[in-house]
Amino acid sequence: MSRNVSASTVRRLSHYLRILEQFERAGSVTLSSEDLAEAADTTAAQVRKDLSQFGSFGKRGFGYPVPGLKRHVQQILGLEHAWRIVLVGAGRIGAALFEYANFRRRGFSIVAVLDADPEKIGTQWGDVTIEPVDTLADVIAREQAEMLILSVPNEAAQPVADQAITAGIHGILNFAPVQLRVPDGVFVQDVNMVMELEALSFDLSRSASKRP
Amino acid sequence: MSRNVSASTVRRLSHYLRILEQFERAGSVTLSSEDLAEAADTTAAQVRKDLSQFGSFGKRGFGYPVPGLKRHVQQILGLEHAWRIVLVGAGRIGAALFEYANFRRRGFSIVAVLDADPEKIGTQWGDVTIEPVDTLADVIAREQAEMLILSVPNEAAQPVADQAITAGIHGILNFAPVQLRVPDGVFVQDVNMVMELEALSFDLSRSASKRP
Repeated sequence: MSRNVSASTVRRLSHYLRILEQFERAGSVTLSSEDLAEAADTTAAQVRKDLSQFGSFGKRGFGYPVPGLKRHVQQILGLEHAWRIVLVGAGRIGAALFEYANFRRRGFSIVAVLDADPEKIGTQWGDVTIEPVDTLADVIAREQAEMLILSVPNEAAQPVADQAITAGIHGILNFAPVQLRVPDGVFVQDVNMVMELEALSFDLSRSASKRP
Repeated sequence: MSRNVSASTVRRLSHYLRILEQFERAGSVTLSSEDLAEAADTTAAQVRKDLSQFGSFGKRGFGYPVPGLKRHVQQILGLEHAWRIVLVGAGRIGAALFEYANFRRRGFSIVAVLDADPEKIGTQWGDVTIEPVDTLADVIAREQAEMLILSVPNEAAQPVADQAITAGIHGILNFAPVQLRVPDGVFVQDVNMVMELEALSFDLSRSASKRP
């Protein structure tokens, strides 16, 4: 198995999984790399290259079996595992994430929610009671959580991340617009809405200068 | 100016901007590519390569002037322009985005909010009144909006995007977990939390298999 898989390959694998699920629901039994490429807005060569990094799959000329390839991609992405997530920061973004049904459907469970605000602590969200952020290490241990969702104010992001990492967290989905410093073996995905808008701003500015 | 700038270069430019602002607030006058690299967790060669794609800047051996480089990066990113944004979908994510002060601070103004829910239409959010989604084309024309934030249910995403594009929108920040089909010259940034978690799942699975 290749050691260095690009972030864009991983993103495409997620896309392929969505598409395979759609084809499965539609009753398709096999799928060519051309079908998958068209639905994913990429090329058949790219699809074959992405998948070949994780072993050979599908028979030449027969296409891919839909349920088999779906399981294969799920396995590549580590989705056979039920991930246990602690959410720190029970503000609007935190609430939106907690209620996001797609997480649970996809095997990502938010098993605990923590906040620093005394007015929020003790509040019930679904089957979870909001706990004080200073119990983070205990909560991570109790829940055997592996991932952290961080939707806290900027200045709290690094200290909370540090505590979580010490308590055994290896993956962080970070909504605070700060660049977290983490040791090797800990992975961070940043969701920064301003940066997404800045990327659009960049594209639109360059494209506008070419428009009539 | 190079025609093909990678998404990761644009992302780093956004990071550089954050860092330049921090240095400016701290009163720094000049900054070396090494300083910028260290703060951005990259290499000085990468910094120089990223910036050199947009003309020469800074004097060899003198470092970059902080305010000048900041303005230069803002200009590269198209941030001298005040972007006008229409938000469709006044659910939890929409509300969190609307209240996100960083947008306005950075020159991104949400000038209108639309929803399909009759109970939400007419509601006041700050200085904006929620309008019916079927007035989208009129609202875009009235507000001279250039960007769309889409936080609607999956099945509504493509139809709303189509209408917005017909009405003149060129950039979409898409929160619906569907791959939008857009014509050339229209840019989409997808924010897909499940895909971010899947990327973490991928990293953690591979790393766990190497952990003792």
